[in-house]
Amino acid sequence: MRILGIDPGIAKTGWGVVDYEGRRYRPVSFGVVQTPSSEILEKRIHNIAMSVAKIAQEHQVHAISIEDIFFAKNVASAIGVAKVIGALIHQMLIMELPVHLFTPLQIKQAVTGYGVAEKHQVQEMVRILLKMEKIPSPDHAADSLAAAICYAANSNFNLKIGLQELRI
Amino acid sequence: MRILGIDPGIAKTGWGVVDYEGRRYRPVSFGVVQTPSSEILEKRIHNIAMSVAKIAQEHQVHAISIEDIFFAKNVASAIGVAKVIGALIHQMLIMELPVHLFTPLQIKQAVTGYGVAEKHQVQEMVRILLKMEKIPSPDHAADSLAAAICYAANSNFNLKIGLQELRI
Repeated sequence: MRILGIDPGIAKTGWGVVDYEGRRYRPVSFGVVQTPSSEILEKRIHNIAMSVAKIAQEHQVHAISIEDIFFAKNVASAIGVAKVIGALIHQMLIMELPVHLFTPLQIKQAVTGYGVAEKHQVQEMVRILLKMEKIPSPDHAADSLAAAICYAANSNFNLKIGLQELRI
Repeated sequence: MRILGIDPGIAKTGWGVVDYEGRRYRPVSFGVVQTPSSEILEKRIHNIAMSVAKIAQEHQVHAISIEDIFFAKNVASAIGVAKVIGALIHQMLIMELPVHLFTPLQIKQAVTGYGVAEKHQVQEMVRILLKMEKIPSPDHAADSLAAAICYAANSNFNLKIGLQELRI
């Protein structure tokens, strides 16, 4: 199974592709989609969704895992991220790819077994699970790889979160 | 010019089509797209965007005006609405239709000339501008018609808000 993890954001959206076979993870590719602040918001959202569509297609991924946003101190910023998430969900379902949202807590739990782990602990576990020499950089890419691992880990546990319902 | 106004929401998304020629408005059609709470969020967002795409196509609209969300007491609800907005923006730009977001304040200002007008005052002005016998119902449809009027009113004032930049 090949999973595309996404850490969404207006300025920078991290993405990471992970292969998962026989309970082993392998990093395939990762990076960041950036949009300039000189562009209008509508166009930035559209361009992020189109870029992620291209990445999903080029890497022939089987599923998408997006880090969700539920609550934030900065509501305006959270609303911007939520708009990106909505565009990505719609684009992935246009492509008939299973898509699932995970909270930051669920992702930390899946990667480290510990819901309140520090950011660097999560990134270090991503490095170990993916057998990489260094923590993947930048942070947005590392976070997207964690989202991909979370999807794989949950698909393993007898689809307990109902992933089978996500293909429409 | 034919404009599709949208009042976005997960459970109910109001839509209203308005013709605007020679500073006169004419209602074309309006309604509400509903999604059942029994469906998963990802599918609801996708279905709303697909339904609005169908409405835009059937009515051959020239532009889309969406009521934006900036701030809300209920952050979780605002984040849901923002996801719908993101999916709609992306879908409209896939269709190469100009799309613009207006804040509730901008819409009230455009429709009533008064930014802090009450909800029923806005709806009554929508009724008067569209020469309708009754206030359009339900509320979500009336609000979407107000969003459409706001786009038209602003396009009239020498494109002062930069609508010309929105076609990509």
